[in-house]
Amino acid sequence: MIRTFCFVPGEDLHTDIPVKEYSSYLNNPNGLFWVDFLNEPNPSAEAILTGIFRFHPLAVDDALQETHTPKVDDWGDYLYIVFNALAINREDGLDVNINELDVFLGHNFVVTHHDTPIPAIEKAWSSINTDKRYINHGPDHLLYKIIDDLVADYWPLIETLDGEIDWVEDQVFTNAKPEMLERMFALKRALVAIRRIITPQREVLNRLARDDFDVVDSKDRIFFRDIYDHLVRLHDLTESMRDLLSGTMDAYLSVINNRMNEVMKILTIITTLFMPITFITGFFGMNFFSPVAEGLGKWTGYAAFIAMLLVIAGTPAVMFTWMRRRTWV
Amino acid sequence: MIRTFCFVPGEDLHTDIPVKEYSSYLNNPNGLFWVDFLNEPNPSAEAILTGIFRFHPLAVDDALQETHTPKVDDWGDYLYIVFNALAINREDGLDVNINELDVFLGHNFVVTHHDTPIPAIEKAWSSINTDKRYINHGPDHLLYKIIDDLVADYWPLIETLDGEIDWVEDQVFTNAKPEMLERMFALKRALVAIRRIITPQREVLNRLARDDFDVVDSKDRIFFRDIYDHLVRLHDLTESMRDLLSGTMDAYLSVINNRMNEVMKILTIITTLFMPITFITGFFGMNFFSPVAEGLGKWTGYAAFIAMLLVIAGTPAVMFTWMRRRTWV
Amino acid sequence: MIRTFCFVPGEDLHTDIPVKEYSSYLNNPNGLFWVDFLNEPNPSAEAILTGIFRFHPLAVDDALQETHTPKVDDWGDYLYIVFNALAINREDGLDVNINELDVFLGHNFVVTHHDTPIPAIEKAWSSINTDKRYINHGPDHLLYKIIDDLVADYWPLIETLDGEIDWVEDQVFTNAKPEMLERMFALKRALVAIRRIITPQREVLNRLARDDFDVVDSKDRIFFRDIYDHLVRLHDLTESMRDLLSGTMDAYLSVINNRMNEVMKILTIITTLFMPITFITGFFGMNFFSPVAEGLGKWTGYAAFIAMLLVIAGTPAVMFTWMRRRTWV
Amino acid sequence: MIRTFCFVPGEDLHTDIPVKEYSSYLNNPNGLFWVDFLNEPNPSAEAILTGIFRFHPLAVDDALQETHTPKVDDWGDYLYIVFNALAINREDGLDVNINELDVFLGHNFVVTHHDTPIPAIEKAWSSINTDKRYINHGPDHLLYKIIDDLVADYWPLIETLDGEIDWVEDQVFTNAKPEMLERMFALKRALVAIRRIITPQREVLNRLARDDFDVVDSKDRIFFRDIYDHLVRLHDLTESMRDLLSGTMDAYLSVINNRMNEVMKILTIITTLFMPITFITGFFGMNFFSPVAEGLGKWTGYAAFIAMLLVIAGTPAVMFTWMRRRTWV
Amino acid sequence: MIRTFCFVPGEDLHTDIPVKEYSSYLNNPNGLFWVDFLNEPNPSAEAILTGIFRFHPLAVDDALQETHTPKVDDWGDYLYIVFNALAINREDGLDVNINELDVFLGHNFVVTHHDTPIPAIEKAWSSINTDKRYINHGPDHLLYKIIDDLVADYWPLIETLDGEIDWVEDQVFTNAKPEMLERMFALKRALVAIRRIITPQREVLNRLARDDFDVVDSKDRIFFRDIYDHLVRLHDLTESMRDLLSGTMDAYLSVINNRMNEVMKILTIITTLFMPITFITGFFGMNFFSPVAEGLGKWTGYAAFIAMLLVIAGTPAVMFTWMRRRTWV
Repeated sequence: MIRTFCFVPGEDLHTDIPVKEYSSYLNNPNGLFWVDFLNEPNPSAEAILTGIFRFHPLAVDDALQETHTPKVDDWGDYLYIVFNALAINREDGLDVNINELDVFLGHNFVVTHHDTPIPAIEKAWSSINTDKRYINHGPDHLLYKIIDDLVADYWPLIETLDGEIDWVEDQVFTNAKPEMLERMFALKRALVAIRRIITPQREVLNRLARDDFDVVDSKDRIFFRDIYDHLVRLHDLTESMRDLLSGTMDAYLSVINNRMNEVMKILTIITTLFMPITFITGFFGMNFFSPVAEGLGKWTGYAAFIAMLLVIAGTPAVMFTWMRRRTWV
Repeated sequence: MIRTFCFVPGEDLHTDIPVKEYSSYLNNPNGLFWVDFLNEPNPSAEAILTGIFRFHPLAVDDALQETHTPKVDDWGDYLYIVFNALAINREDGLDVNINELDVFLGHNFVVTHHDTPIPAIEKAWSSINTDKRYINHGPDHLLYKIIDDLVADYWPLIETLDGEIDWVEDQVFTNAKPEMLERMFALKRALVAIRRIITPQREVLNRLARDDFDVVDSKDRIFFRDIYDHLVRLHDLTESMRDLLSGTMDAYLSVINNRMNEVMKILTIITTLFMPITFITGFFGMNFFSPVAEGLGKWTGYAAFIAMLLVIAGTPAVMFTWMRRRTWV
Repeated sequence: MIRTFCFVPGEDLHTDIPVKEYSSYLNNPNGLFWVDFLNEPNPSAEAILTGIFRFHPLAVDDALQETHTPKVDDWGDYLYIVFNALAINREDGLDVNINELDVFLGHNFVVTHHDTPIPAIEKAWSSINTDKRYINHGPDHLLYKIIDDLVADYWPLIETLDGEIDWVEDQVFTNAKPEMLERMFALKRALVAIRRIITPQREVLNRLARDDFDVVDSKDRIFFRDIYDHLVRLHDLTESMRDLLSGTMDAYLSVINNRMNEVMKILTIITTLFMPITFITGFFGMNFFSPVAEGLGKWTGYAAFIAMLLVIAGTPAVMFTWMRRRTWV
Repeated sequence: MIRTFCFVPGEDLHTDIPVKEYSSYLNNPNGLFWVDFLNEPNPSAEAILTGIFRFHPLAVDDALQETHTPKVDDWGDYLYIVFNALAINREDGLDVNINELDVFLGHNFVVTHHDTPIPAIEKAWSSINTDKRYINHGPDHLLYKIIDDLVADYWPLIETLDGEIDWVEDQVFTNAKPEMLERMFALKRALVAIRRIITPQREVLNRLARDDFDVVDSKDRIFFRDIYDHLVRLHDLTESMRDLLSGTMDAYLSVINNRMNEVMKILTIITTLFMPITFITGFFGMNFFSPVAEGLGKWTGYAAFIAMLLVIAGTPAVMFTWMRRRTWV
Repeated sequence: MIRTFCFVPGEDLHTDIPVKEYSSYLNNPNGLFWVDFLNEPNPSAEAILTGIFRFHPLAVDDALQETHTPKVDDWGDYLYIVFNALAINREDGLDVNINELDVFLGHNFVVTHHDTPIPAIEKAWSSINTDKRYINHGPDHLLYKIIDDLVADYWPLIETLDGEIDWVEDQVFTNAKPEMLERMFALKRALVAIRRIITPQREVLNRLARDDFDVVDSKDRIFFRDIYDHLVRLHDLTESMRDLLSGTMDAYLSVINNRMNEVMKILTIITTLFMPITFITGFFGMNFFSPVAEGLGKWTGYAAFIAMLLVIAGTPAVMFTWMRRRTWV
């Protein structure tokens, strides 16, 4: 799908411009011409990008193929920029999808290309009629508004992750369960995916804010600088979330380890207390004792029986005291 | 709440200045005008910052929103600076709260904005009447005094953490307990939080000490350099605390591991010593022996009984000797 | 084996040129002369490289010896460049072989030297007759086409590894098996091997795209830049694969650890439940009880028997309840 | 305590100079005036440093407060330098104490300030009468001699640590004991403390050797460069000691782990061998068998008895063979 | 031992030159004068180095003391360079010895100083008569030949280590044994030692290849660059060997862990299967049952006996099925 609009100061907005009229709009140096390719087949897009806009074939190739990392290429008359939008794939908020947004930015045009709908683009599209800030300051300012929204969309995702990490952190010392392990690894995977996007994105904004690009008005750089600062904060936040998560994982493993220790200690105590007295009962259970037991007088028998009971009761008591001394129990 | 004062050399201090008179004080190039916003609602603050001081909207946005990392932005006539104060949240001193302090520094004014009371601000506020060093050397020196106090407030917190780490370190080899694990992870979390503040804060001071900002008098840079040195020391200290803590955690895990080894060894020794002799008693407990035992002559029976006793006593003795040889016990 | 061709604009392609005619082709500044050494014995190759092309002995030595890491040396009139092709050694796709490709690039010639057939070279060789893009833009563009194909050949390998990692990741929480360990270490080894190639290769392309080499036409740099971008993406991909793999390994070990915990718990529960009641049966199995049991009246005997049954049934029930309280079971 | 001396070429050494004469000595541009504050109360030292030498208050503050990391501040007419001396606290040589040495270096004076006696200072003090190299080449050369001795004093400490690590390394595979763990962590702590000193100290010397300080004669820089090289070696040495130590710790844990494995295997073997035959003896110990056993004929009884003996002897033998096959034993 | 030779173009080689004639040879700007100190006592060497060659005392000190890390110092008229030769200490090829080689390189002389014989020096010494490349291109080229041989001597050692690592890697999944642990740690130690040499050595060669030293002819730099490339390769190789080794260590620990898991599982299965049935035999072994058993009729007794046998046989069967369901066995 191709959407277009052109804004010329003093005139009405033109929308749904046919392809053959693109050139005339491109030739108007005061206009703001936006073409948005949404899931458009490659041949049709390529024809326009190469044929009408006359972008370099390598840049067009980059735009039509997927999975680029964010970057900005200066082609003189225009910039080719790759951004990434984040979207959540599953309901649990931990499966991160990355949607690529390719942008060509010229003196009087913006071309955007993406395969999936991106909320920031939709918002810009629906605001051009109502919010003059989107169109009154030239293509670089329009781009700023789009990127600003795109980066703002990162926050809910980050906050979801942050909440999850807080929850896991709270649970780990009070209620560590094997199921938390899978959750923590899903969180880690999501954080790795997000950080992999934010770092190069930040560099793109840094270049837009600092480099002397022809098509970026020097007074607009401060706005890109602002987005850059947001990305720095996001980066710091994900860093600290990673630290917290990795600390929580270590804590989880230590808690599990401690618990295992506890289990081993109880096993050892049980074994240590019962093995000797089970042996004693076995000893007196041997058939050698049948005649002996039978041969004992009544009172001697009772005395021996009570002595044995004392031994059986005393052995674990003595061992338990000894274990207490070694601070085991 | 808005607090203000204005100091003009040779005049009395003016305090509690109404908003409409701000402009006249701002126009006095020799004055020192301080406006402090403490938990002031955003609309009212924004009106003053944008309307009267005419700060850039992006800078005002940054100041009114929370959770920025420390930074300094040069806007020509004024600097926008973000600092962080540290406060302890809970009684145990391990739950660190970070309070943001936004500062606008101009040639003749300082504007501070924060949502929670910050001791360094309160101290400056109560000192302006008594300690001339706060107001006699211009706004940059006033800022220096505030930041100096703000950074000095980090020390008690660091010392609390340091003492805790020393305590844990002492305990770990003599008295390792599972409860120490949670303590160590709380310490680690506090250290991570503090280091995340100190590093960018240090860079802010570095820039104030080195960069050629219009509003910072060159002879005042040496003072910011001094705070920078303090932050370098704090950074080194937290680094070495982190090293110690991570070493202590490793030591804790190793001690726990050793102890588990010990437990396993005792379990194995008990099992190894008692299993064979329990088997022997079981063997002679079988009913096959009833007739045999009964059929033995008295003296043969006694001899067999004593032989069996010797076997029962000898087996563990032999095994114990064997284990000693393998340096197990 | 030596293959040669020479293309002069406006003439037919010359192929299979005898060695003695090399000099005349080299002297034609408008020609494109390609010599490809495939597994040629060193003395014969050295004679040509040193004698006819007059390359520096150190460069020739480098080319004839194996196992160099990618690099580019500027010798003024020509560049000496080392690339690496990746090939799979075993059917499982995890045993990576690295084949070196040495290239000398001059104003009107390309010399390639390799010990094993490299698909990118074969493809270029078979395309020179049919695809004019290979030969129409000079030796640097021919080199670009070769390297582009060579780097494109990395993708299937990377995708195989990616698929494997995905599979292992899916399995680790549902079906962790010791065999997966060997697989994960093989994947890790393959990733280490690939990253070791990609990083210096990327630097080579970076220099070809940026440095002001005499023999690289400035308008061709953008093409090398494009390959550089591909290598950056490959590098990022292998980085993220490494992260995922190392996370998966940690997860595997944690899952195994959890399972061991489970096993230990069951062992302890079994031991804890049965040891006491086994002791009780032993206790009442002692021969002391024979006379006692025989001396009991019928109804007293039954009562004692039932009491004992209750004790035997009650002990584990009580213990199990106690374990449940400690959230063990 | 304050010690002073002043050397003027051609004159005798003046020592124990009263405070009020300091100014006159300071005004002699050809003299070499050394003031050493050893554990002098702060007020008295501050009076001299600020009042007579007119050092900047911030520098004086730094000198009088403790626990600075090594640094060099250029104050134009003089340098303020912080060094650290290492001293051993306990007899075992693993408890490292760090003593701060503050130095002010001017064109014709050296001021040293420290709270504990530092051997390098004592040595310099006792050498000024006998070794002309200390005083003949100006204050920067005197400083060089002091620092050279101070750094030379690091060596015995490093060698003690090195010997300890060698000893632990030798023991770990032959005689690993839990006590070694505490030793290794003490070594690690000592190494961390030393590296934390050496790195910034090295940077101080680097600056003295390279930067163009007014008060350091350019021909003396080569001497500071020499100390810098020593510190580089010390740094490399501590790095390699750290590597060795961390490898030894890993080895220790692996050895302990192996040993635990061994213990577990023996436990399992014992359990596996005895459980079945203990069950058999229990089985034939049941009272059901009393009548059966009694009802058997003599020879049948013997045959059954021998058959049972064979079963009891054969079961462990078969199991042991099976375990051998699985390469367990 | 001191060995000398001097080569003047057009003349014979002079060897075994007496010390007092050194000066005259040094004054010949066209000569190539080589002095080699092999394990010469320090006083005699110092006399020559300081007295005749007039090297700076600090450089002479460095040369006569041992254990420097590789470096190059530019003293204007001459360079002082430290190299390290590697030698194997023990037969197993894993105990690495580092021998220092100090070199002074001037316009017409090379001075080498070492305490142990170094093969590269011996080879150069024996080649000067036969191989003109050693002496025909000045002292910097002679140095190149020596260093080239010295670095070439690293290869056999690296290859030994590489073979060892391959062997361990092959064994770890099929035949992991505790003895391999010690071997792996010895390999790691050797790799650490080698990398510690190669990195600074590489930097020395980098400086010789790039820096504009007076005594290194600009056309000879390309040769030092070649050695630099070799060292880069060596460095990469040791890096990848370290990666492989550390992966192998992880694999070893995981294999051992898996094996322990297996052992624990068998222990648990044995215990789980036998504990209940041992309890049952104990239960029926109690003397309460004697009268009961005796009181049963013959057929009832047989029926009870068979029922009990079924219980005893059925319990483990049921448990085993249950364990299979939980995918334990």
